[in-house]
Amino acid sequence: MTDITGRQGFLLHLDSSADDAADSVTRRLTARFAAVWRAHHEQAGYRYRDLAADPVPLPAAAYATLGRRVERQGVVPLAAVARLARGAAEEREWALTRPLIEELRGAHTVLLGVPMYNFTVPAALKSWIDRVTFPGAFTAPESGASLLAGTRVVVVVARGGGYGPGTPREAYDFQVPYLRAYFGNLGVAEDRLRFIKAELTRAGDIPALTRFQDLAKESLAAAQAEVSALAAGR
Amino acid sequence: MTDITGRQGFLLHLDSSADDAADSVTRRLTARFAAVWRAHHEQAGYRYRDLAADPVPLPAAAYATLGRRVERQGVVPLAAVARLARGAAEEREWALTRPLIEELRGAHTVLLGVPMYNFTVPAALKSWIDRVTFPGAFTAPESGASLLAGTRVVVVVARGGGYGPGTPREAYDFQVPYLRAYFGNLGVAEDRLRFIKAELTRAGDIPALTRFQDLAKESLAAAQAEVSALAAGR
Repeated sequence: MTDITGRQGFLLHLDSSADDAADSVTRRLTARFAAVWRAHHEQAGYRYRDLAADPVPLPAAAYATLGRRVERQGVVPLAAVARLARGAAEEREWALTRPLIEELRGAHTVLLGVPMYNFTVPAALKSWIDRVTFPGAFTAPESGASLLAGTRVVVVVARGGGYGPGTPREAYDFQVPYLRAYFGNLGVAEDRLRFIKAELTRAGDIPALTRFQDLAKESLAAAQAEVSALAAGR
Repeated sequence: MTDITGRQGFLLHLDSSADDAADSVTRRLTARFAAVWRAHHEQAGYRYRDLAADPVPLPAAAYATLGRRVERQGVVPLAAVARLARGAAEEREWALTRPLIEELRGAHTVLLGVPMYNFTVPAALKSWIDRVTFPGAFTAPESGASLLAGTRVVVVVARGGGYGPGTPREAYDFQVPYLRAYFGNLGVAEDRLRFIKAELTRAGDIPALTRFQDLAKESLAAAQAEVSALAAGR
């Protein structure tokens, strides 16, 4: 498939839950999205990455050193970064980083499964963010425009409790507002960044949340319907 | 040393920067705090953990499964969790987790060095948070009170840009407000949770920030003075 700029693209599907699909609301919802999307985009590619089972290594000191050297030069084209790397440690860090950047740049649609852990994104997702967000990696060197302006990002989130507008825990949501700021800063257009939320997913486990089990079911059903509709392009 | 409840304690010093001390503002500031604190608390213990060089493994599925089983029972004393673990994977997860919990519970003062990476805490710190925050681990089973109510937490943060009140980037700070919410939720008392901030630390590297170099120097000098005073108990 091609996007509006004629660029070839694929669905990049990233999961970050520690749980297997049997216990993970986000894994089941992203699998549903991927299945429907792929059925509607038969010519498009698909890439899957399990950030929990196959963790992205934390950035080492050489990653930061190389990043600063690149950043001091302004925006360096991706192909020119390797020439700025000095020594085996920096080369190794760049070899771990570049494929993730190319994957994100090449994606037509990015699908993320993101449970809330301790009020924000899982460490598994943050490891990917801390590595892929290399200085200048998503900026066109000539124009300064974002290379992700045409990318669609669909974030499927699950939260054990309720964090919606007006709830007592709203101010503890450092998951959705954070990812909105992060992807917005990368240049993803506001109308191409979508969040689908399943709330109160721990209502069956946590004694204090038992009374919210009906709300949890409603929230999950709504998220399932939203996933299917969005993946089908409705 | 003993704290106000008579509990023995030690300084738990955690660093999370990818950089070595030569390039890390937070590492140098936490080292200064630790040196001054130890000179003023000669009888107290000291534990150091480098969360970047020696990463805490991401929680596996068995961690989450064991956590749910424990949480369904309410608050389970730490010593009783091992009896609830089923199978080698859960035992392994608990063996990785329990020492970190005991270390945090036993600390008189917790000192964290936290650079801002992509608007929030580094993945290295989030990995520690995602593991140490086991259900009920910081709650007294009898009273429901927090076991960290008497713990002092000193967070030394560095941010490449400026994120203070009134700055254009204030809303992008998911670092300090996040850690305030996280430790507050664990039961750390508001007046025992302190943040020391070095702002604009990348002013020397990033062309667009060059004009803020004087502000960066002032911010660093203020942070250094604050660290020394706080560590000396002034």
